[in-house]
Amino acid sequence: MSERRPLPAAEVARWDADHDVVVVGQGAAGGAAAIEAARAGADTVVLERMTRGGGATSLATGITYFGGGTEIQRACGFEDSLEDMQAFVGLAAGEQADPERVRLYCEGSLEHFQWFRELGVEFKPTFIEEKTTHPFTDDCLTFSGNEEAWPHSARTRPVPRGHKPAREGEAGGYLMEAVLAATLEAGATVVNECRAERLVVDGARVVGVLARREREPFFVRARRGVVLATGGFIHNDAMLAKHAPQLLQCNYNVGTEGDDGSGIEMGVAAGGEAINMSEGLVLNAYYPPDSHLKGVLVDARGQRFVNEDSYLGRTSDAILTKADGRAYLVVDDEIHGRTQAFHKLAAVEESFEALEKALGLPEESLVRTMAYYNERAAKGEDPLFHKAAKYLKPLLEPPFGALDCSTDNSIFGVFTLGGLSVRATGEVLDAGGTIVPGLFAAGRCTAGLCREGRSYASGLSIGEGSFFGRLAGRAAAASGPRS
Amino acid sequence: MSERRPLPAAEVARWDADHDVVVVGQGAAGGAAAIEAARAGADTVVLERMTRGGGATSLATGITYFGGGTEIQRACGFEDSLEDMQAFVGLAAGEQADPERVRLYCEGSLEHFQWFRELGVEFKPTFIEEKTTHPFTDDCLTFSGNEEAWPHSARTRPVPRGHKPAREGEAGGYLMEAVLAATLEAGATVVNECRAERLVVDGARVVGVLARREREPFFVRARRGVVLATGGFIHNDAMLAKHAPQLLQCNYNVGTEGDDGSGIEMGVAAGGEAINMSEGLVLNAYYPPDSHLKGVLVDARGQRFVNEDSYLGRTSDAILTKADGRAYLVVDDEIHGRTQAFHKLAAVEESFEALEKALGLPEESLVRTMAYYNERAAKGEDPLFHKAAKYLKPLLEPPFGALDCSTDNSIFGVFTLGGLSVRATGEVLDAGGTIVPGLFAAGRCTAGLCREGRSYASGLSIGEGSFFGRLAGRAAAASGPRS
Repeated sequence: MSERRPLPAAEVARWDADHDVVVVGQGAAGGAAAIEAARAGADTVVLERMTRGGGATSLATGITYFGGGTEIQRACGFEDSLEDMQAFVGLAAGEQADPERVRLYCEGSLEHFQWFRELGVEFKPTFIEEKTTHPFTDDCLTFSGNEEAWPHSARTRPVPRGHKPAREGEAGGYLMEAVLAATLEAGATVVNECRAERLVVDGARVVGVLARREREPFFVRARRGVVLATGGFIHNDAMLAKHAPQLLQCNYNVGTEGDDGSGIEMGVAAGGEAINMSEGLVLNAYYPPDSHLKGVLVDARGQRFVNEDSYLGRTSDAILTKADGRAYLVVDDEIHGRTQAFHKLAAVEESFEALEKALGLPEESLVRTMAYYNERAAKGEDPLFHKAAKYLKPLLEPPFGALDCSTDNSIFGVFTLGGLSVRATGEVLDAGGTIVPGLFAAGRCTAGLCREGRSYASGLSIGEGSFFGRLAGRAAAASGPRS
Repeated sequence: MSERRPLPAAEVARWDADHDVVVVGQGAAGGAAAIEAARAGADTVVLERMTRGGGATSLATGITYFGGGTEIQRACGFEDSLEDMQAFVGLAAGEQADPERVRLYCEGSLEHFQWFRELGVEFKPTFIEEKTTHPFTDDCLTFSGNEEAWPHSARTRPVPRGHKPAREGEAGGYLMEAVLAATLEAGATVVNECRAERLVVDGARVVGVLARREREPFFVRARRGVVLATGGFIHNDAMLAKHAPQLLQCNYNVGTEGDDGSGIEMGVAAGGEAINMSEGLVLNAYYPPDSHLKGVLVDARGQRFVNEDSYLGRTSDAILTKADGRAYLVVDDEIHGRTQAFHKLAAVEESFEALEKALGLPEESLVRTMAYYNERAAKGEDPLFHKAAKYLKPLLEPPFGALDCSTDNSIFGVFTLGGLSVRATGEVLDAGGTIVPGLFAAGRCTAGLCREGRSYASGLSIGEGSFFGRLAGRAAAASGPRS
């Protein structure tokens, strides 16, 4: 890896640029930080390594997690409240989440939705019936997490909170175009093809960034603060091996090449602490079609191990941790459809006996699992995993097929959830809980709102990145200018 | 937590002591490091926070992992080879292990065994037949890991390598007494009740330790190097929450109060990197008696999830990750015995139907699991999990009991496996792989030989701590004296 140890300011012969606030990275977090810093009156620059900003968000569906009663939720006939949202986001964020961040995120959600609306981002007042993580249409509202799935459904009132911007296909680029335009409008300077390499420090305080433009060093002074918004580290195999080895089982990195952990490394080298580094969101998308949720997911012992209608972050985590990476979704002709990320049919047979044999499962294992499942499904019950009644259907009519959902035979997307330890303001903390002066961070380079991939909901990354990016931008702008 | 940021040497008004090598902590790792540093001619001091050294090893059974054909293995009629040992230790260390360290550990094993013998530690040439992690007698040789259990048994030749010193009960104290005596004999100085708080640095180089004795600061200069051997961080809940939250489910910390992560924090604050921080060894001991391995371990769905004859590190990890912390060991009267760490009988019933009901398991779940298990066990088969034939017995005669092996109803011991990133020499590395000059580490404050609790074997911690402690002591002694 590159040298990440901070450079003492005394070694900077000449600053090539001089600003109040320096934002590193122009994805959802950095974009939001720059807008707010500039609007607060700070002379703000964004250093973006790519030719154009957008980050991982510009590649995403653009679903953002809003709630508490947005105009879209109301138009679609869903009641939501701050309490309901807080209860669910608390579950999704996990036991180790920072309750202060959860509270602020939920309390600020309606205002944050409005902020995007005022950037010009449109949302259609339409609900997406099908359970999907990648809606193709320009429709908006979706159950984007485990809201309707057990055990979440038993603990909080199911309300859809995923809001997709009003564009067909992937809408993250559309959302980010609005952010990029607003950044310039707010008066921030954007420097593209500029790769931050090291922080510059004066004693313990971060006072600037050493970046590289066309191979030349570029010294940028930050009079008030530096905001790291560089994304996660899924594109850095060495970091994964050291901190999140289980994620190396996955075979498709979700993010841009910029998600190489550089900001985390810079922050740690300057005294910040990286926490929750082992966690990631894992995504094996056997739905849509949502008819597949009527299928039966079994491991190499022919046993079920999770309710199939869980959010795919939970089912995919279960495939890794509970099924040791080998799993099959058993379907019949009626429910079998084409998945977005291709799944191979490992076998198609006229009976469960034959299917079991074809898959190399232990004798009578799948046969017994299906007998038990079918008997209960016929009664609308799933005593083992409590799959929702609407997805319970006995599989009785051959042929039966098995979609291969194993790590070595299907696509497992993955991104990281660990990173720098921050306050809600984005201030970066060291291991002792002391602020690293002059340093802020937001988005996937921080240990985020959500601490557990298995409880994650789509839209939380863009949601928290932009929300806490805004707070970080404001905090950096308000941080006392250095003489 | 205490302030851990390193103190600049310029702020040290007066050194209270001045040595070549300063070892922090006198457990197996620090003890071995001090002996070797002193024997190599370095003026060596050990700073030990407790009234007497010994560390976690002095509380342990004392089983140490040796192989390759020790005199004990040979006397007991077991053949072992470097290749066989390396194959198994490689599996036990896990996919992310450092192959160089695995190789050195195995190549040096016979010499390392001899080293302990020469310290006066005795081992009886007797084999312990029963599968146990806590032998009560003074017998020696034991299968202390997954050697005989599937899948390890299918991949490497099963050889016992756990060597317990020749003392009844816990023998770790006996082993450490020999280490403590040899430390003084080698000429090292030991300072007890001396708690290291911060490293002292001159630029990037570690040149000493700020410790505290009876509340007074105590500045110890290290002319050649500091060896951190402070143990893990299982006694630091804040660190667990940040780095290994899943271990907080466990309720019994294995180690001394010294295992509070202080050395890891000091090393990181001085520029070192902590890696693999999420891993731990989890221990729920439902055996001995080894008749319990003939029991059937089921989760809250009444399903099996691991072969019951695995090393308890593997079964306990499975209870946490695969069974979500709720599990029962089903036994009959014949195999039921008293466990060392008390297990409550959650229910005793005359049939599996009644047992299932009493435990609140889904209807017909346990009944079907037991029917399948019993049918195969009668034929000496376990097609699901490949339990060894000698532990396969159909459970046919009521009453049937269920031992509660859940995290909230039984004892889950735990210690951490993550820590400072080091070379085989003990040199501490930063995130970029560069050595932190003057700093060495060994034992549980380092990311050890074994990277995965589920594949761990008893004796690896004392084994690697003492083995790599010796290398670290030698390396520190050989490190060029400063001016």
